[in-house]
Amino acid sequence: MADDLPGWRDGPARRAVLDFVARTTDPGGADHVEPAARVAVLDNDGTLWCERPVPVQVDFLLRRFVEMAEADPALRDRQPWLEARTGDLAWLGDAMDRHYRGDDSALRLLVHAVTTAFADVDVDAYDARVREFFATAEHPVLRRPYRECVYAPMIALLRYLEAHGYVVYLATGGDRDFVRPVAQDLYGVPPERVIGSAVGLAYVPGDVDGAPGTLRYTAAMEFFDDGPVKPVRIWSRTGRRPVVAAGNANGDVPMLGFAGSGDGPALRLLLRHDDAEREFATDAGAEQALAVAADRGWTVVSMRDDWSTVFAGDDR
Amino acid sequence: MADDLPGWRDGPARRAVLDFVARTTDPGGADHVEPAARVAVLDNDGTLWCERPVPVQVDFLLRRFVEMAEADPALRDRQPWLEARTGDLAWLGDAMDRHYRGDDSALRLLVHAVTTAFADVDVDAYDARVREFFATAEHPVLRRPYRECVYAPMIALLRYLEAHGYVVYLATGGDRDFVRPVAQDLYGVPPERVIGSAVGLAYVPGDVDGAPGTLRYTAAMEFFDDGPVKPVRIWSRTGRRPVVAAGNANGDVPMLGFAGSGDGPALRLLLRHDDAEREFATDAGAEQALAVAADRGWTVVSMRDDWSTVFAGDDR
Repeated sequence: MADDLPGWRDGPARRAVLDFVARTTDPGGADHVEPAARVAVLDNDGTLWCERPVPVQVDFLLRRFVEMAEADPALRDRQPWLEARTGDLAWLGDAMDRHYRGDDSALRLLVHAVTTAFADVDVDAYDARVREFFATAEHPVLRRPYRECVYAPMIALLRYLEAHGYVVYLATGGDRDFVRPVAQDLYGVPPERVIGSAVGLAYVPGDVDGAPGTLRYTAAMEFFDDGPVKPVRIWSRTGRRPVVAAGNANGDVPMLGFAGSGDGPALRLLLRHDDAEREFATDAGAEQALAVAADRGWTVVSMRDDWSTVFAGDDR
Repeated sequence: MADDLPGWRDGPARRAVLDFVARTTDPGGADHVEPAARVAVLDNDGTLWCERPVPVQVDFLLRRFVEMAEADPALRDRQPWLEARTGDLAWLGDAMDRHYRGDDSALRLLVHAVTTAFADVDVDAYDARVREFFATAEHPVLRRPYRECVYAPMIALLRYLEAHGYVVYLATGGDRDFVRPVAQDLYGVPPERVIGSAVGLAYVPGDVDGAPGTLRYTAAMEFFDDGPVKPVRIWSRTGRRPVVAAGNANGDVPMLGFAGSGDGPALRLLLRHDDAEREFATDAGAEQALAVAADRGWTVVSMRDDWSTVFAGDDR
């Protein structure tokens, strides 16, 4: 038993996972789920890796903003470029807090800067930049590589699900193409199973000499994959209704609500950030999700109580 | 050899396929493609199943239009409902011909009717309707079930590619959710590997008693997956650049042009409908594609010359 889900302490959350997997994979049981229908979807920021004080991608963008402001002095006194250059995260932290409170005005400014940041870059060049970032970048507070800010118990959960025939998709509110280059290494999830927000893409034809066509990002978002958009993107990608869904924030409620059919089994996990010692302790942005979870009997996972380990490589 | 690609006569097309697969799967060869990168994308209408005189989905829609006109007399004297009720396909055939000539005015009327036709239907109900249609519907000219209007040599190609580690995706200009319910049975391709045009979807939350949320079609197209949109949708779905691409029409040129990286191997197949006896003979809508194929040395597959069998179940 202990080896099934390393990093998980015995308790209601761990037992809910083990019980669900046992029930849905028992060929003779009432809750059996046929292998083709064993689809699991997991949020990324705050569910598989740390998203505090700001999502990893924001740090990536800050570095790009610094680069842009170096090249274009007109940007230097405007947000978010000003913030990026001073290295003070207050404006961005506030933008995220306002987003969690339902005010997206600052986030929209950020999204605009984001789409501008990589307009006309092609998908291969963007992929290379992302890989370069993850090769060295460190978490500003935890002071460890971002690659080691993934939650070890969640990785154990992915492997456990896969060992029982579940196919795992990420369903991130972050940029799909920011997560794809590292999803295989960090999570064992290939690019075709990373669902997420999308920047617009335009096809640029190749030439008659045989150079292939390519895809370049436009300066517009295609869609922001959060809240009610998550079930739409999950369906668009998979053509299936998931039976396992895991998230940590209000924006994950529709995804969790979409899991499972009327009377069929479903496992809905809501990760609670309540571990001030090993990570962060805050319910900001998860208030509605926690209320719905209590109402509907979804499984709340306490980082503090349910996990013996938090980060990959740690062993407490 | 004969068993590798049943239905294909010995000739340049068959040899191009065998040679490409041999080169890209030889671990020591210069053209070796690692297993994770072995991605093949295939158009559906006119490439995997017959699209003449009108695409299969149009027949499906005609039946829905008849149903709508029964329910709402105001529709009976308007196109395409009028056409649907009289059973005369002239207007629709003309709409498709005009589309192939670059005039989408009639097609847009059709698309409008299409999106209206299933607005507010949920994804499960639509899936059931599609399955019901394919259980009995027959091709109006070939007089055989649509299920038997798939090209046997192309199915053999799919199996041959898969046997050599290729993962096959459909990239249809038709409605993704119209093809998904039958893609496993007809092609051995699961729903998550069907890429195609998308009608908008809206999430409808479940209730506190535990009824799950669902997705309903809106009355708007999300995107029409043809021409330069195909590479965008292929990337969005897979996060990879395909190395095998097959199509039959002008709208497939960007998809074929997107296959393969600069100096890496790529197999680009253009199916030519030149078999008046066993199917249809026309280059309408493929003129540009044939010209580009000639320019760039893409492999043209002649239904008449390269295939010993056309439809699944036949044996000529």
